[in-house]
Amino acid sequence: MVHNGIEYGDIQLISEAYALLKDGLGLDYDQMHRIFGQWNEGELDSYLIEITRDILAMRDTDGEPLAEHILDTAGQKGTGKWTGISSLDLGVPVTLIAEAVYARCLSAMKDERVMASAAYARPTVKASAVSSLSEGELIDDIRQALLASKMVSYAQGYMLLRQAALEMGWNLNFGGIALMWRGGCIIRSAFLEKIRDAYDKDPQLNSLLLDEYFMHVLSRAEAAWRRVVVLAVNLGIPVPAMSSALMFFDGYRTERLPANLLQAQRDYFGAHMYERTDRPRGEYFHTNWTGTGGDVASGTYEV
Amino acid sequence: MVHNGIEYGDIQLISEAYALLKDGLGLDYDQMHRIFGQWNEGELDSYLIEITRDILAMRDTDGEPLAEHILDTAGQKGTGKWTGISSLDLGVPVTLIAEAVYARCLSAMKDERVMASAAYARPTVKASAVSSLSEGELIDDIRQALLASKMVSYAQGYMLLRQAALEMGWNLNFGGIALMWRGGCIIRSAFLEKIRDAYDKDPQLNSLLLDEYFMHVLSRAEAAWRRVVVLAVNLGIPVPAMSSALMFFDGYRTERLPANLLQAQRDYFGAHMYERTDRPRGEYFHTNWTGTGGDVASGTYEV
Repeated sequence: MVHNGIEYGDIQLISEAYALLKDGLGLDYDQMHRIFGQWNEGELDSYLIEITRDILAMRDTDGEPLAEHILDTAGQKGTGKWTGISSLDLGVPVTLIAEAVYARCLSAMKDERVMASAAYARPTVKASAVSSLSEGELIDDIRQALLASKMVSYAQGYMLLRQAALEMGWNLNFGGIALMWRGGCIIRSAFLEKIRDAYDKDPQLNSLLLDEYFMHVLSRAEAAWRRVVVLAVNLGIPVPAMSSALMFFDGYRTERLPANLLQAQRDYFGAHMYERTDRPRGEYFHTNWTGTGGDVASGTYEV
Repeated sequence: MVHNGIEYGDIQLISEAYALLKDGLGLDYDQMHRIFGQWNEGELDSYLIEITRDILAMRDTDGEPLAEHILDTAGQKGTGKWTGISSLDLGVPVTLIAEAVYARCLSAMKDERVMASAAYARPTVKASAVSSLSEGELIDDIRQALLASKMVSYAQGYMLLRQAALEMGWNLNFGGIALMWRGGCIIRSAFLEKIRDAYDKDPQLNSLLLDEYFMHVLSRAEAAWRRVVVLAVNLGIPVPAMSSALMFFDGYRTERLPANLLQAQRDYFGAHMYERTDRPRGEYFHTNWTGTGGDVASGTYEV
């Protein structure tokens, strides 16, 4: 299931890179075919990049790229959704796969999107107007954003495996799972070796994002990744998976999140209590926030 | 359930605005207290903005803002998760609520975040270095980003209600539901009247995002919203709900999404078939992409 969820993520990320190359940079299919061919020679070397390269070269009987004639409404068989549901049940933030599933749902709402596209104008700005980078630099930025997002997605998938193992009492061989996914699976890639290496080095590794190789690549790719999300936001090109991955990354490496305010709100309206930074974990406190005598301002809904 | 899911979204959005004001603009609690007070006088007038205003004014016994002493690990009672699961089951892209639930999960991984914060340096750039706007303009940008994101969240929640009604054969009074949520509920707000108005005008309204008032506000707020997400990306402040809402908005008003490539991939590796732009819906096509005789390149996994 996690394999298939990750596959949803990979496919969505590739689709976002394709949208950026085509709609953002204005590249044609021959150019995109060559780019995916080059990407397949490097860190992104994988079955899905390889078939994307081939798909982009395929011509229809009229000589046009076949992909241009394919309707943009994605189907699904349910394994991505299942991963999303499992992650919600286990309380693991597998944001990228969930966004990939939702992106398929949104793509299927074609008629409504056509209506909305008439109601809302798309930003008219071009990549060259919002970026001083050359075309080649922008293309490599997109490659790095794809790679960094993919790393977050696999790290999230492994977080789900870790939590499931904990709750079910499973003893999972995390490196072996990566190795297994290399054999004939749709997400097979050179990259899976790096996951195997990470767990070989440290079978108790907390998160792939704390492995040396992942840290090295993410730190190197981070600036490009930010530039790509900014570019997409400015151009109005949706990159829900790439941006969700970046948001997760920024949350993950933030020591102090604004959840203190969230806890204050929950204590205000529902007396849900909070822990304090200056007291041991597991000690819970409640404040009479309204100062009007009652302990709880509203008790109707518990969230 | 949808009420509570929307509440998760509202709370997360307010937390993100607070993080931007505090960590992005460097404002203190007195300033933030006044800002939320002002926001509560306008379009954002609501119970949750009001209690945030009050929380920001509350001092601990040592004279420090009490919120500063609250641990940033969010709890949850399960209704947000339930909304997320239901949206996945019904195939409705309720991205903002899902991201809000995941943000709570991530906040709860405090020990791992502390480790990661040592491993990855936060961008050191300041708001003044990446934006030429004045403090007042940035604050109003954040207000508009919060409002626009909130509109997307409610539109998504209503999409879920619509789909549930369709599948269950329910006859829902969508305007009446908004009215009901005004009475004592945690998401009570002036804004709910606009939803009631929208359904009064057109009980068959496809989406709140296609209502005249929503379109007017979103079009007005759009530029500010983009600036805020760009600012957050550049500063490394996670705004998963605001950015997810913008990505949904950009996808929703995009006539042609890259799901054509996604369908080509699914047809390539699993012979899942695709529809064509130049043929009626419901007619399915398959291509022998490899040209090597076999119809399907890989049949192991069906996604």
